[in-house]
Amino acid sequence: MCGIFGIENAENASMFAFVGLLTLQHRGEESAGITSNNDGINYITHKSMGLVSQIFKEKILNTLTGKTAIGHVRYSTHSESTLLNAQPFVFNCIHGNIAVAHNGNITNCETIKKELAQSGSIFNHTSDTEIVAHLVAKSRGFSAGELIKKSVSRLEGAYSLIFIVGNKLIGVRDPFGYRPLVLGQKDNSYILASETSAVDAAGGTFIRNVNPGEVIVIENGKIIEDIYPDRKEKEKFCIFEQVYFSRPDSVLCSKSVKNARVQMGRYLAQQMKDIKADIIVPVPDTGIFSAQGFSEESGIKFQTGFIRNHYVGRSFIKPSQKMREITARLKLFPIKDVICGKKIVLIDDSLVRGTTAQKIVKILRDVGAKEIHFALSCPPVISPCFYGIDTPNKDKLISAVKSNDDIKEFLNVDSLTFLNIDNMKKACSNDGNTENFCCACFDGIYPSKITDTNN
Amino acid sequence: MCGIFGIENAENASMFAFVGLLTLQHRGEESAGITSNNDGINYITHKSMGLVSQIFKEKILNTLTGKTAIGHVRYSTHSESTLLNAQPFVFNCIHGNIAVAHNGNITNCETIKKELAQSGSIFNHTSDTEIVAHLVAKSRGFSAGELIKKSVSRLEGAYSLIFIVGNKLIGVRDPFGYRPLVLGQKDNSYILASETSAVDAAGGTFIRNVNPGEVIVIENGKIIEDIYPDRKEKEKFCIFEQVYFSRPDSVLCSKSVKNARVQMGRYLAQQMKDIKADIIVPVPDTGIFSAQGFSEESGIKFQTGFIRNHYVGRSFIKPSQKMREITARLKLFPIKDVICGKKIVLIDDSLVRGTTAQKIVKILRDVGAKEIHFALSCPPVISPCFYGIDTPNKDKLISAVKSNDDIKEFLNVDSLTFLNIDNMKKACSNDGNTENFCCACFDGIYPSKITDTNN
Amino acid sequence: MCGIFGIENAENASMFAFVGLLTLQHRGEESAGITSNNDGINYITHKSMGLVSQIFKEKILNTLTGKTAIGHVRYSTHSESTLLNAQPFVFNCIHGNIAVAHNGNITNCETIKKELAQSGSIFNHTSDTEIVAHLVAKSRGFSAGELIKKSVSRLEGAYSLIFIVGNKLIGVRDPFGYRPLVLGQKDNSYILASETSAVDAAGGTFIRNVNPGEVIVIENGKIIEDIYPDRKEKEKFCIFEQVYFSRPDSVLCSKSVKNARVQMGRYLAQQMKDIKADIIVPVPDTGIFSAQGFSEESGIKFQTGFIRNHYVGRSFIKPSQKMREITARLKLFPIKDVICGKKIVLIDDSLVRGTTAQKIVKILRDVGAKEIHFALSCPPVISPCFYGIDTPNKDKLISAVKSNDDIKEFLNVDSLTFLNIDNMKKACSNDGNTENFCCACFDGIYPSKITDTNN
Amino acid sequence: MCGIFGIENAENASMFAFVGLLTLQHRGEESAGITSNNDGINYITHKSMGLVSQIFKEKILNTLTGKTAIGHVRYSTHSESTLLNAQPFVFNCIHGNIAVAHNGNITNCETIKKELAQSGSIFNHTSDTEIVAHLVAKSRGFSAGELIKKSVSRLEGAYSLIFIVGNKLIGVRDPFGYRPLVLGQKDNSYILASETSAVDAAGGTFIRNVNPGEVIVIENGKIIEDIYPDRKEKEKFCIFEQVYFSRPDSVLCSKSVKNARVQMGRYLAQQMKDIKADIIVPVPDTGIFSAQGFSEESGIKFQTGFIRNHYVGRSFIKPSQKMREITARLKLFPIKDVICGKKIVLIDDSLVRGTTAQKIVKILRDVGAKEIHFALSCPPVISPCFYGIDTPNKDKLISAVKSNDDIKEFLNVDSLTFLNIDNMKKACSNDGNTENFCCACFDGIYPSKITDTNN
Repeated sequence: MCGIFGIENAENASMFAFVGLLTLQHRGEESAGITSNNDGINYITHKSMGLVSQIFKEKILNTLTGKTAIGHVRYSTHSESTLLNAQPFVFNCIHGNIAVAHNGNITNCETIKKELAQSGSIFNHTSDTEIVAHLVAKSRGFSAGELIKKSVSRLEGAYSLIFIVGNKLIGVRDPFGYRPLVLGQKDNSYILASETSAVDAAGGTFIRNVNPGEVIVIENGKIIEDIYPDRKEKEKFCIFEQVYFSRPDSVLCSKSVKNARVQMGRYLAQQMKDIKADIIVPVPDTGIFSAQGFSEESGIKFQTGFIRNHYVGRSFIKPSQKMREITARLKLFPIKDVICGKKIVLIDDSLVRGTTAQKIVKILRDVGAKEIHFALSCPPVISPCFYGIDTPNKDKLISAVKSNDDIKEFLNVDSLTFLNIDNMKKACSNDGNTENFCCACFDGIYPSKITDTNN
Repeated sequence: MCGIFGIENAENASMFAFVGLLTLQHRGEESAGITSNNDGINYITHKSMGLVSQIFKEKILNTLTGKTAIGHVRYSTHSESTLLNAQPFVFNCIHGNIAVAHNGNITNCETIKKELAQSGSIFNHTSDTEIVAHLVAKSRGFSAGELIKKSVSRLEGAYSLIFIVGNKLIGVRDPFGYRPLVLGQKDNSYILASETSAVDAAGGTFIRNVNPGEVIVIENGKIIEDIYPDRKEKEKFCIFEQVYFSRPDSVLCSKSVKNARVQMGRYLAQQMKDIKADIIVPVPDTGIFSAQGFSEESGIKFQTGFIRNHYVGRSFIKPSQKMREITARLKLFPIKDVICGKKIVLIDDSLVRGTTAQKIVKILRDVGAKEIHFALSCPPVISPCFYGIDTPNKDKLISAVKSNDDIKEFLNVDSLTFLNIDNMKKACSNDGNTENFCCACFDGIYPSKITDTNN
Repeated sequence: MCGIFGIENAENASMFAFVGLLTLQHRGEESAGITSNNDGINYITHKSMGLVSQIFKEKILNTLTGKTAIGHVRYSTHSESTLLNAQPFVFNCIHGNIAVAHNGNITNCETIKKELAQSGSIFNHTSDTEIVAHLVAKSRGFSAGELIKKSVSRLEGAYSLIFIVGNKLIGVRDPFGYRPLVLGQKDNSYILASETSAVDAAGGTFIRNVNPGEVIVIENGKIIEDIYPDRKEKEKFCIFEQVYFSRPDSVLCSKSVKNARVQMGRYLAQQMKDIKADIIVPVPDTGIFSAQGFSEESGIKFQTGFIRNHYVGRSFIKPSQKMREITARLKLFPIKDVICGKKIVLIDDSLVRGTTAQKIVKILRDVGAKEIHFALSCPPVISPCFYGIDTPNKDKLISAVKSNDDIKEFLNVDSLTFLNIDNMKKACSNDGNTENFCCACFDGIYPSKITDTNN
Repeated sequence: MCGIFGIENAENASMFAFVGLLTLQHRGEESAGITSNNDGINYITHKSMGLVSQIFKEKILNTLTGKTAIGHVRYSTHSESTLLNAQPFVFNCIHGNIAVAHNGNITNCETIKKELAQSGSIFNHTSDTEIVAHLVAKSRGFSAGELIKKSVSRLEGAYSLIFIVGNKLIGVRDPFGYRPLVLGQKDNSYILASETSAVDAAGGTFIRNVNPGEVIVIENGKIIEDIYPDRKEKEKFCIFEQVYFSRPDSVLCSKSVKNARVQMGRYLAQQMKDIKADIIVPVPDTGIFSAQGFSEESGIKFQTGFIRNHYVGRSFIKPSQKMREITARLKLFPIKDVICGKKIVLIDDSLVRGTTAQKIVKILRDVGAKEIHFALSCPPVISPCFYGIDTPNKDKLISAVKSNDDIKEFLNVDSLTFLNIDNMKKACSNDGNTENFCCACFDGIYPSKITDTNN
């Protein structure tokens, strides 16, 4: 997963990119970068491993001059997590200097790479963004929009891309629209961003989603091209964005993520109306709104049962067993007198490997929880994602390899309830239309071809 | 404010100190340090500016060998914030090597320092902990406990101290017991810590508070001395610990902080029973439990109205005006459809300068809040703290310089309600006894002498 | 200028590369890097700005496992001095992973780059080594040697290259042999290096020079291919290597650099036999051996007149005027009682801009030198180098823009003598053959075409 | 060993301190620091582990404002090499803020420390400079000079000290004058420095040595006090300064170090007049001037036989055996055609442990030296130094534990000659007076009491 942001025709463009990336930080904590461009020719890039707030101090932002800037936060969906693969990716080619920031996953990357190698291309990186760069360099078009449209026509899979090409800021989404990309406006500037909350944070106004397949070209504060691919696909938006990935204050599919989650909680409460419980306890922070919806629907009291320690980050790379044991309970602290002796509905967003949930249940048991009814605001995750969400292989997905009873036993819970798939879709839809979602991780139906599964 | 932690007779003592400090990180984010001791003679110290999780990697903890360790997190209450003043403070003297970690503020520091200088002492630091070290070096006692008892007898003000003296771990609290210090146990080890949650996190069990004035000496897993000062004072525990400073999962005065805060919210609801509102919105994270209590008492719905961005830390040291404007709304994001068109009870823990509250109210107004009734779960702060809380001078305290009507106007709120002082005391007390609190910042009554006000 | 080193079939190959680079450090102090390869597939690279001894600690060398390693030290001859351009340059292409280290300067770089861009190549770097990579990726050959031979056939200018291609270590020199590259042997390993001293330092034995145009392919301790280009050129070895650039303990053209320099000094003494002087003083360190030769030939006493401060490095990036004045005399300290009252023959290797020489003369005058006869062990530098030596543009070359009399006055010396070009060639030749040198910087005769002058 | 520098009444005082420290870097490469003072009250200090040029960038020097500055470079003579012990040492006491930089070794340090501990002093450091600070804090005087005079009266051993006390710069030498300290002048500023070359580098003029026992107080460009201790001792200047430690361009005892060394070489030549050799080869850099003197006296040709690699620093902390073998020959490269087949007089400054000399001899043998006659420009080192030179314990001194024949065999040399002690003294004396040297390391006669031998 990644987050991307672009702004054009703005004084201090890099500062707005910084604000946008801070807002999108939850989409990728591994590396961050900003490229700015003033004169249409020379680009300035600063990127590094780490968090946005650590990487970009004001002194550095002041060096990223220019009225156009794009930024990127990265959480690798592949194995190689190095600075080399940090974005934006800047390259020089027949079309001049180009910068690109990419969110998604190309599913025919290896196939294209082999063809490129045959024609003499060299590769310095392992990210699939380099493939995009090569395709741009080898494509021709009468306009910048046509060039980008042709460049991405070979790509399969999921991609939302923001380019700087000369003086232009360009946004693209794949024909299925798997990954989000929105258009905003602020004074005389257009903004492109992964989520509406980043537009808000930069002081802008959300205009509309970039459409599936759309190529939108912005220059001097105007949309100068707006074109679509020759092939037209039915939209398949990743429903996991609402379930887990996006910020609650973002708006997806004309519905705030927060409201979708409250609704998921309400549906869960309906599914579990026979469960007698004393309190609803969310796993912070993603379970909070589902828990609120559950509480409202069921009348069972919502309680904050955990303190989350925000100071505990990814500080221990490969800690020893000893260290793991000592620090096991540092991230989530139970509030004992909330939990002790209670029948609890525990709400989390999703169940992937099951290992974290097992630890959380143990923490509740240790402080005296009487019953634990575990409710997930999505269906069982049974298939891996090839479109950019970092889910593990199928054999690591607990719902793919264990029965619900076995999972119940593994987790040591009194009951286990998944939101059913129709309820999930209804909760996420604004208008009752539930056809436009990619639910591949829940139903195994992949809308587009997966040519290269190993990437 | 600071947080302190000590453990004795434990394998991997420094790892438990690390866990304790992570749990106490909210008490001081400026610097952190751990000193360990194995053989009663040589001490190993690692300390640095920054956060606990950044400073202590496993490789470093492995160098801090030994079965006794003390740790410290610091938020300076004085001007000089440098590594030089980071703790633990280790020194060599007639009694051998000694390490000390200090939470509090000595109010006759300058007077003692002048006397020490007369007798030929040298000073390398600006913290008042160095004064404690000098007093130890100049004192004599038949036992380690007597030595420490005599050493601290000259001190006025607030202090909770943890020492390593040779093979012994020693805890002390000032005779008024302003600052917390608790005793815990884990297997064959005793633990001393600022808060019970740190004992819990280390896997230990809370035993009791260290009493005001008590000097407790621990060696080889046993309490070998437990003595009291000759002068006996009435306990005056800092009530601001419950209002704001301590973790909600800690237990103070035999009552969980969370419960005290829920009760504050209930009393506030009673005080404000004539206010008609649609929702209760807390300022995260400290207002959450008061808001819960308010909601329970009033029946008005609790709503999460803000997303707090935990990625935005102290990244911009002295940012430019331009930068401040751009990043103004990064820390707290309003969830628009929760707020818009609503009559809101906004709950925060306390009002000090008023500048942050003014910004938060503006954020709510910007997204369409209809009415804002601002409720504080403590009385007006009208006097500075000399006992270790980092409150500003009186002329910066908004309640000391403005009338409530002027504050209401300044903040742009429809009503402004402070929890009254009796309700606050009742909420914090376990047994109805409301005499044992220091409420100097609310009532201006300082239990002990302030000899040197300028420190 | 750069230095390159490669070793094959050696345990701890990267440690020998480290030793080689330390020995070649004088050829480039800007950045250094090592790439190692064990299995013919995966390469490990560490490179950084700075000095070899700062970049490579034993812990890092231990991560560079494998029996083949190449290394590079860089002093940029172009403007962009960034980590991006540090070498070895590693890329993936149709032939697998390839690493290359480059010493020299390609004179048709821009022309090739334009053609590559037309065919859709992308560029991430600004160094001409990336061009070499593209040519390799676009070439085909029945063997690794043929591949490299074809790849470099388009290149004009100066290049000595070391590649790792799969399991093979490959060395190449351009058809004119401008830049040095030697072959050494150590136990069952072959070594390729810029200078013989690096072979010696690694404990190996110098075998022979790699010949102009030669492509030499080494695998498993054997030379498996040894081929030559179709075009055959007359050797034109850069004579500046002997004059200034190479280490005195290296052997070039079958003659030790030290002996060449002693001989230059002897010829200078013959040219200056009418000058009456008390002492010969070299500018350390490059003038020492010429001064020795001059002293031997003339009978005038050699004296160490300067202490060079080896601690003063490139510490002040763009110092202020104030700082420049304060630190002006830090690098070379005169020994007053050697200099004062003496008629001095001052010997330096070459005169390029003249600004440093002017300062040195002033230092000698300040401590009382009576007469200064300035002798240069090479002719006037009148033309820029396009083959990899970092000489400035013609208008910055003092001998290109000023008469000898004007230079004498500018430097404030009593006489000024340049070694004449025939003497220089004779001094550098082992066998009296003086045809095989490139003396373009002295005579303006460029052996090969300079297609792109601006690179 | 350490180097110290102070300047008063100078704009940019810290920049001159920087220049002075760069010049004195050879006296200590472990840590460096500068303290500046403008207003007589507040001092600014920057110190760090590492080399002067790495620690002090212009940006940092610009923060060290003020017209008075002192600086220090340190090579620890004790075991603890940490930043804690870096100097200048700054402390606050009854006399205000005081900074001190120290060169030497106090031989009754432990005794004084015990007394101080009895009186209640605390110690944060392990250096003996902290003892000096305590004595200053406990002393009283009618003037700054009297204060310092009394403070140092208890000290035994070797010390040259520079203080900042309020607005005053103060220099002191111990009554025997073991360690150098000179007075210089530059415009309206006085300079104090370990060596004259540092005065020269700062653009100043050498005035005279600070005398043994002298306390000199400088304020506003004037010497305002100049007092002497009550006890008067015969001067005993460390002769090792001329033999090895000081820069050749410094003047000690009215004689340039370079001239003293040339004379040592001449005497050595006289002692070895029966040796037949082809060339004189110095071990660089300290043997160069002795070799020159030897060559002049004997008529045997001086040759540069080694290239010293100045890039190889202390980069490998505790390298593995493998690494040590690989890098053994990196520091000194033999020039084979100078050495091969020759009878060589090899000249070094001194023989301490013998291990380095053994390696150098092996390098010469490996490249074909025919005979090696090893000449040392000082007598056998048979006793440790307690006055500040970092010689090892007696059992590590090769001349203390082996006969000359055994050493010859150990080193594998054809002959071994030490300069005899009278010749050494004569070479170092300007006026034939050879009484004023401390030669304890050569003759075991310690001029002053060694109360605490273990420090």
